[in-house]
Amino acid sequence: MKHQVVILGGGFGGLYAAQSLKNTDADITVIDRRNFHLFQPLLYQVATGGLSPGEIASPLRYVLNRQKNTKVILGEAVDIRVADRSVLLKDGALVPYDTLIVATGATHHYFGHPEWAAFAPGLKTIEDATEIRTRILLAFERAEKDTNPADRRANLTFVVVGGGPTGVELAGALGEISRDTLRKDFRSINPAEANIFLIEGESRVLPPWPPALSKAAVNSLIRLGVQTRTNTRVTGIDGDGVILQFGETSTRISAKTVLWAAGVQASPLGTILSRNTGVQLDRAGRVLVEPDLSLPGHPEILVVGDLASITQDGKPVPGVAPAAIQQGRHAAAVVEARLRNRKLKPFHYLDKGSLATIGRNHAVADIGPLHFSGKIAWLAWLFIHLLYIVEFENRLLIVVQWAYDYFTHNRGARLITGDWASSDEALGPGSAGSNKT
Amino acid sequence: MKHQVVILGGGFGGLYAAQSLKNTDADITVIDRRNFHLFQPLLYQVATGGLSPGEIASPLRYVLNRQKNTKVILGEAVDIRVADRSVLLKDGALVPYDTLIVATGATHHYFGHPEWAAFAPGLKTIEDATEIRTRILLAFERAEKDTNPADRRANLTFVVVGGGPTGVELAGALGEISRDTLRKDFRSINPAEANIFLIEGESRVLPPWPPALSKAAVNSLIRLGVQTRTNTRVTGIDGDGVILQFGETSTRISAKTVLWAAGVQASPLGTILSRNTGVQLDRAGRVLVEPDLSLPGHPEILVVGDLASITQDGKPVPGVAPAAIQQGRHAAAVVEARLRNRKLKPFHYLDKGSLATIGRNHAVADIGPLHFSGKIAWLAWLFIHLLYIVEFENRLLIVVQWAYDYFTHNRGARLITGDWASSDEALGPGSAGSNKT
Repeated sequence: MKHQVVILGGGFGGLYAAQSLKNTDADITVIDRRNFHLFQPLLYQVATGGLSPGEIASPLRYVLNRQKNTKVILGEAVDIRVADRSVLLKDGALVPYDTLIVATGATHHYFGHPEWAAFAPGLKTIEDATEIRTRILLAFERAEKDTNPADRRANLTFVVVGGGPTGVELAGALGEISRDTLRKDFRSINPAEANIFLIEGESRVLPPWPPALSKAAVNSLIRLGVQTRTNTRVTGIDGDGVILQFGETSTRISAKTVLWAAGVQASPLGTILSRNTGVQLDRAGRVLVEPDLSLPGHPEILVVGDLASITQDGKPVPGVAPAAIQQGRHAAAVVEARLRNRKLKPFHYLDKGSLATIGRNHAVADIGPLHFSGKIAWLAWLFIHLLYIVEFENRLLIVVQWAYDYFTHNRGARLITGDWASSDEALGPGSAGSNKT
Repeated sequence: MKHQVVILGGGFGGLYAAQSLKNTDADITVIDRRNFHLFQPLLYQVATGGLSPGEIASPLRYVLNRQKNTKVILGEAVDIRVADRSVLLKDGALVPYDTLIVATGATHHYFGHPEWAAFAPGLKTIEDATEIRTRILLAFERAEKDTNPADRRANLTFVVVGGGPTGVELAGALGEISRDTLRKDFRSINPAEANIFLIEGESRVLPPWPPALSKAAVNSLIRLGVQTRTNTRVTGIDGDGVILQFGETSTRISAKTVLWAAGVQASPLGTILSRNTGVQLDRAGRVLVEPDLSLPGHPEILVVGDLASITQDGKPVPGVAPAAIQQGRHAAAVVEARLRNRKLKPFHYLDKGSLATIGRNHAVADIGPLHFSGKIAWLAWLFIHLLYIVEFENRLLIVVQWAYDYFTHNRGARLITGDWASSDEALGPGSAGSNKT
């Protein structure tokens, strides 16, 4: 019987591991709860109506269908039986492995306030993105109908919590929607009067980036009407807005739309691995792996992507797509090296740089010694994202949609969908939390 | 104060009425429950993973934003107060009108069996389409896992109820998915073994079409593995399948996926109009209108599209998009003629013909004296659909998606989404009815 490699998760880490094992003499099984690979870096564009879900997702079976040694199982791993070397799925099936690659990523985390989730959705899944899209669009619809100025103002106020790349990109897209996309769409309100706040606990947005780029990002955000509040913590979120803490001062912002781009928590499989093997987790629940990405004492288990905690040159390897891809490829190389009894160097993360867009024509880029911003950074962002998705089928669609949106200032995928899309209650205040899709 | 025209519904009838009133000296208000116009003839392609929702929907505000005399209200009309000339919305707002154009269309109808709705979703909304897409894809996923041959067979059995154009197109797309799109995607099952049944109560599919085309359609369906059952009525639907009645014989088909493409029922506003004005309705609840599309005794109320019942040369005008468009334009012409005190000829439906696709490269066309089928009909279908959507922004995207899918035999938008997409219960038998998205 061939060596059995089981990969949990079809995100960047898991998918690239599977693809890198294409020509290996082993049987590969990819297990995911979802039937598609999601190009998560563009999820904020679905949330803001720029792209359709299908344009940033590819069916896993399709992506892997020519890979004869690989099969895909739709299912959720609920336990890893280390002694038996098998994975227990929620439907009761046991999947045995010789090597296990765990790549189940991370979800958002509300710093001990799970009750905030209903009021401030995060952005990890397609459903999150369509829910956020619905909330944003309905807020403008409610404002168009509001006769009470305070209600109208609350409906036209948007708060993005977290000034990392996701928060900056979301806030920038909100600025563009209000200042550009919707500018001719309403009759009673001027969407450009929307108040958009970006809240960051540290002293600047994009904290790990060079300070000059944080400043460039803030300037680009200002051009789109986004107000940045740094050194500010969120101490409360409910259906009417947020409470902010700045030093000793506490203020309330009335806002009907609050989006969460702050905390990240590793997948629960980290906790399960820790319980079953004694491996240590970091504060965010990530698994502290060996330099070759394996678990201490369990070389047959490798952890890659956002679930893995690894430091390099004293700095943590960031939870970004390129790191997950590189780790997925490394894990595949580990499997191949062992099958051939070869030695392999430890994992080394090659930081190709970071980019974040802020509306049309603006981005910030931190690429090795190069720090730049503005239109050139935006073109670099565009080019690199198109390169990354070049392996997937959807690149041409995205190019066409982007080109069309760029020249028409439109966002074609601005659909209000879901359970309550057709109910008037949805237009009433404070009902956004009832959307389940 | 200007003449107030209120249009209920932003489908083909309502939208074309609004656009035709662009240069009229009147205020136009379009009211819809949804924030987008839906290109319904392509909805079956969303249901079968060929297109994304955003590709066949355009935000109503965007489509109408350059039309300065027109505003859009997101809301649902629950009453028409004929004496006051105003429309009551669900949120309590009253919208006064001088002329009212009612274009709220139709929904599906289960012939007195509303309990079938949970087991056999129809295809009218984006949510219907994504739910059907999820059901189809999950059925293959369950079959891949099934160890019991009877369960596997039931999961690989699909029943489409209703042999009109929608049923034929859905069944054809199912055939193509199972025989072509998914052919390399599974390891335990051969998707081409799927049983697909198309059930029609009349003696042939596409009953109002020329008999030769019904035959051509059946032949195209056979090539895709679809079995057509004519003269057959559905007498029962539950979570395990359907009961069919053919003459005196009753048979049961075990099928986990049943799709409804049979009955159509006019929007409830027909009943409200009838109650408030005494206007007569036909059997499907459509409003019997005057030759100018107005209500008898209420020239200020016009009804267009699927909600209108009108005969021409002894035949009913069909409930198809071209008829709705022509009626919408006619209603606008009626308004303009009255404002200018001119006379107008009665509405005349110009039948430009009918087309239905059956998988790739096959279609049937009934265009005036021309009846043809096969690849030329398919090219005609493609050309005409692209022409129709030429007014909307999404045409280029659809061209690209179609071209890509055509050459790769893929369907890029095959996403399993919704509440239960990530729960293993969804993979168990009989759970499809719990999907609410």
